[in-house]
Amino acid sequence: MYSPTIESLIEQFAQFSGVGRKSAERMAFYVLDTMSDEDAKKMAEVILDAKRSIKFCEICQNLTDTSPCHICSSAKRDRSVICVVETPKDVSAIEKTGQYNGLYHVLHGAISPIDNISPDDIRIKELLLRLAGGETEEVIMATNPTVNGTATAVYIQKLLKPFDIKVTRIAHGIPMGADIEYADEVTLSKALEARTEMN
Amino acid sequence: MYSPTIESLIEQFAQFSGVGRKSAERMAFYVLDTMSDEDAKKMAEVILDAKRSIKFCEICQNLTDTSPCHICSSAKRDRSVICVVETPKDVSAIEKTGQYNGLYHVLHGAISPIDNISPDDIRIKELLLRLAGGETEEVIMATNPTVNGTATAVYIQKLLKPFDIKVTRIAHGIPMGADIEYADEVTLSKALEARTEMN
Repeated sequence: MYSPTIESLIEQFAQFSGVGRKSAERMAFYVLDTMSDEDAKKMAEVILDAKRSIKFCEICQNLTDTSPCHICSSAKRDRSVICVVETPKDVSAIEKTGQYNGLYHVLHGAISPIDNISPDDIRIKELLLRLAGGETEEVIMATNPTVNGTATAVYIQKLLKPFDIKVTRIAHGIPMGADIEYADEVTLSKALEARTEMN
Repeated sequence: MYSPTIESLIEQFAQFSGVGRKSAERMAFYVLDTMSDEDAKKMAEVILDAKRSIKFCEICQNLTDTSPCHICSSAKRDRSVICVVETPKDVSAIEKTGQYNGLYHVLHGAISPIDNISPDDIRIKELLLRLAGGETEEVIMATNPTVNGTATAVYIQKLLKPFDIKVTRIAHGIPMGADIEYADEVTLSKALEARTEMN
């Protein structure tokens, strides 16, 4: 229904996961109708520039401007703990809590037989290489509490058995502020199981 | 929480209306983590190319590769009817019905005192210039049934009084397949008011 140029702009935006046809159309018309020529040029440049300059941190595998990244190269971080997450967004989420001062390791995915993602497809080798350094005392598995995330955590835990390293898993339970009435049964079971004594 | 380059990529996507911070992050990481360098380059090029080659049709003001657009220059369209819409997306929506064979006029907005959009800010002058040509017998006001869209339709209808042109408004009523129980009162009143005899 649109001219070929508009169609191909819509298609570009429609490839983002979670962006449907309608949203992609809205974005395309935002570029064409609302943005100035200069702003559109800026957007194209930022995409090219980001793609050019963002790389994987040679240590934690997070996406970064500089390698090693600012976390891995910080003298203030506790180098004895590594928190293993699936994505760069998880690093950001944990950093926002302000409660964690260790290092990270970004797997860039989780093992998923259905999607044909094997342990070799995510950055587990890189984690093992880091652990060989001997600085690490604890590895916190903070992969998602999904089937794939849990399988990945268990897989890595088994791999780490030969090392003299404590492997922990983030706690699962009722989210703060949530209603127990509406919690799903698995979460509620986990919450009961992991109950702690009140002091 | 992210490096400056990643932040500026997120900001680019966050400027789209309807795209929140979380979605913009997802889009940025899609570019950085999932897309190949080639695909990202393609996206930047398509944005630049679209912005460069898409222009307003000199007749109907729709966004188009070629001016006049394929609708305005088609010999098969009925040149005696002009359907006035707010946006290019509305043209596409009406074209999809396959029920309309006339021409269009895209206002690129609606009059909105609150948002400081006056009649001069949308393409009403261009519509008047077209009507001066004398070919037009009917103008269908297909602006949105919102406060602004309705005000715009009424404003244009009044402007067109001196011309010997029929001005019509698209019908409002209960959408097909919808439940009367859940229709809002204004729509239901309009639907009752505009009832037609059954044959």
